[in-house]
Amino acid sequence: MTTDRLHCFKESGNSYKVALALTFAGVPFEKVTVDYFDGQTRQTVWRSETNEMGEVPILEFDGRRMSQSGVILLHLAERFDSLRVEPDEREEVLRWLLFDNHKFTANLASYRWPRTFAKPSPHEAVLAYMRQRTAAALDIVDRHLADCPIIVGDRCTVADLSMAGYVYYPADELGFDLRAEYSRIAAWMDRVAQIPGWRAPYDLLS
Amino acid sequence: MTTDRLHCFKESGNSYKVALALTFAGVPFEKVTVDYFDGQTRQTVWRSETNEMGEVPILEFDGRRMSQSGVILLHLAERFDSLRVEPDEREEVLRWLLFDNHKFTANLASYRWPRTFAKPSPHEAVLAYMRQRTAAALDIVDRHLADCPIIVGDRCTVADLSMAGYVYYPADELGFDLRAEYSRIAAWMDRVAQIPGWRAPYDLLS
Repeated sequence: MTTDRLHCFKESGNSYKVALALTFAGVPFEKVTVDYFDGQTRQTVWRSETNEMGEVPILEFDGRRMSQSGVILLHLAERFDSLRVEPDEREEVLRWLLFDNHKFTANLASYRWPRTFAKPSPHEAVLAYMRQRTAAALDIVDRHLADCPIIVGDRCTVADLSMAGYVYYPADELGFDLRAEYSRIAAWMDRVAQIPGWRAPYDLLS
Repeated sequence: MTTDRLHCFKESGNSYKVALALTFAGVPFEKVTVDYFDGQTRQTVWRSETNEMGEVPILEFDGRRMSQSGVILLHLAERFDSLRVEPDEREEVLRWLLFDNHKFTANLASYRWPRTFAKPSPHEAVLAYMRQRTAAALDIVDRHLADCPIIVGDRCTVADLSMAGYVYYPADELGFDLRAEYSRIAAWMDRVAQIPGWRAPYDLLS
């Protein structure tokens, strides 16, 4: 068994999901920084040799390279007992993991990116539109967390880790002060952040 | 075993994914039309009793209600041998299913919806922005299909059915003439459409 290598960059919340899972599982890993801002993931050679989907993270282990944070998280849940998903929770974990990819991370990240990193900034109508979509996804999760302390069941699963990908980035990047505006999401963020080993994205990925 | 009931509406490509899977598996199902345009999925009672995520499709069977098209497709792949995913293809099927939820369906649907159904129409800058994101996802899939006839392996899987959710809607709804602009996607669409039982979305869901 070789040391896991995580191809990532610190602004990538999808990378943070996997880094947090490895950290919670107590697995040491090596970070391989991908130069996203300089276009590395858009290069033809990177797409053909590393990931045709043009995305990070990539987890490299035992001579394999695995991509898509959701696939990697489910793999880690199989591999490490501390991340295991109980059979009777599998469907619900998958449901929230897919919701995260389709709506929650998708919108949080798609709003944060243009407002914080894109040059030139997109039209203000684009930002307003993305903000509205993001708020709708945040509302759904905040309402869900009114009835339960954690996304599924009674302990942190890969569903939480997927949905935790972007929420800990600074409020001025996200365009939402989650702790002030979404009380149940804030309480959930605190619960996940109390798990031993937790570190914020720029701390864990730098 | 009761007849499966699919809560859906004909403009929903996510519903079409499941309808197509049931059709390919030769399973009769009852359609239950959801009045999305009149706000049914945004009603508090619908969210609390049917789907807190506010989305269709819902598959109702054996007294259960299952949501998220990706979860339903993976369930159907377990339940019906004709949709089975071989163990050595499972990770790759999941990878494309997640890519579909995160980027492919996410963008195709998020561009089609405001340009075709939203009233009032969003700002033209929003449509231009969504179009650009959609084109990036289409490019990735078109390039993937240059090397293989179908998304994973050598026969249609739930990865194809997920990614087929929106591509068969009319070009003037999508804002892309896929058959004219993306030759590999067009060839793949033809392959899937040749599977016995295939019907276009408005035909299958009306």
